[in-house]
Amino acid sequence: MKIIGEKINGTRKRVAQAIAERDAEFIKDLARKQTEAGSAWLDVNAGTLPDREPDDLIWLIENIQSAVDTPLSLDSANPEALKIAIKAVNKTPMINSISGEPERLTGILPLVAEHGCPVIALALDDKKIPETSEKRLEVISRIVKETRLLGIPDSNLYLDPLAMTISTNTQSAVIAFQTMRCVREQYPEAHLTIGLSNISFGLPGRSFVNRYFLSLAIQAGLDTAILDPLDREIQAAILTTDLILGRDNHCLNFIRASRKGLFEKSVQ
Amino acid sequence: MKIIGEKINGTRKRVAQAIAERDAEFIKDLARKQTEAGSAWLDVNAGTLPDREPDDLIWLIENIQSAVDTPLSLDSANPEALKIAIKAVNKTPMINSISGEPERLTGILPLVAEHGCPVIALALDDKKIPETSEKRLEVISRIVKETRLLGIPDSNLYLDPLAMTISTNTQSAVIAFQTMRCVREQYPEAHLTIGLSNISFGLPGRSFVNRYFLSLAIQAGLDTAILDPLDREIQAAILTTDLILGRDNHCLNFIRASRKGLFEKSVQ
Repeated sequence: MKIIGEKINGTRKRVAQAIAERDAEFIKDLARKQTEAGSAWLDVNAGTLPDREPDDLIWLIENIQSAVDTPLSLDSANPEALKIAIKAVNKTPMINSISGEPERLTGILPLVAEHGCPVIALALDDKKIPETSEKRLEVISRIVKETRLLGIPDSNLYLDPLAMTISTNTQSAVIAFQTMRCVREQYPEAHLTIGLSNISFGLPGRSFVNRYFLSLAIQAGLDTAILDPLDREIQAAILTTDLILGRDNHCLNFIRASRKGLFEKSVQ
Repeated sequence: MKIIGEKINGTRKRVAQAIAERDAEFIKDLARKQTEAGSAWLDVNAGTLPDREPDDLIWLIENIQSAVDTPLSLDSANPEALKIAIKAVNKTPMINSISGEPERLTGILPLVAEHGCPVIALALDDKKIPETSEKRLEVISRIVKETRLLGIPDSNLYLDPLAMTISTNTQSAVIAFQTMRCVREQYPEAHLTIGLSNISFGLPGRSFVNRYFLSLAIQAGLDTAILDPLDREIQAAILTTDLILGRDNHCLNFIRASRKGLFEKSVQ
């Protein structure tokens, strides 16, 4: 289970403020903490309007890279901003994201191919989210056809089946799991990723929904997720699920986390 | 997800004391609380030596039945004790348990058939627990052959794939899940049950292992479990898993539990 740390996102108020005020220490601190918590990538989303986005992205990237050497996930739908950002990174970045929308494929996919980037691909098309897993798989299949044409290996694909909130459709998680199982079967080399927090939007007890959804999704084949790596309940969910699924040799990671107090009530 | 409340068990020190001292109020209180927490059955285990067991079972049954009308799960390996206990119950009880051990089949199965009892069947043979899911399925298949011969419908079978502790074999849960998936396919009318607490024996953070194991087991097909229904984390795990798996219409059970404070940090 690899984590894409979600916290450096300009759509979050405190981060937007840090970007506006050029508060580099705040951003570096987020980068360090998410790296220490085991993030494989740090998502970077300027969250600003197109004319400010390239400058803000470059500022974010430079400050993050001065603090940590964790690879970045460049989170933008804007090919121009991505083009500029890719030149500023030290390590090959993940691109977050493409989808079945033609302009996103045409604009971003050549960049992904040219720079050999891992890329998140959302199972949506023309800004609509298909309601069934069959239709999501169709969108994914169209995307994979395009990526293969450009020579992008399936192993660089991080396919996101989309987890919409259960509050408006109680079958949302089930549809996501079905899509994941089909993808696992059809594209065994591709990865499965998900943005964790949507699933619980509008519900009470969101943290409970997020953590059990994550655990069940890992059983369904999820191997990456965009989430808050500093959330102790999420850390516990991942470690415990890995233990139960027989992926923690001699239970070492679990026991180590326990010794650090992760499972103690008082600190949750 | 149906719960067999595990708390009235004479192998627990406090219950043994209540049995020895004929402290009826303690037992009635456990019966009421487990019923209020949604138990479909109350497990009754005298935990005493064979010569005391029938008397103690009868005393337990009479006191429980004076407090609640929840069906009981008679938990004994002793056919003589079961024979006497069955006569004392008001509602058809579950029998906990048979296994592939010949003497348990010969001694207990005729009782199950005669009284139309639901019965828990453990995937073990001659007191040995098969190491692979294939071998556990073999044992289960032998049991089902016998129950069918006696006209016991598959829908009265609660097959327990056995979840041994992960601390001595990191593949324990995986083997249990595999067994469950095979049973679901081969015997779709039969139920799947499990004793929850073994899985985490000898590990730290046991409550975390138990709750995520339960959630993942429900996804693998578990529809009954012997557990502590008063454990709020377990209640949260079941409600959240049912919600995620699309089994909570309009999210009503989840939202109701939230209003009662189940997901509040301070009360966990």
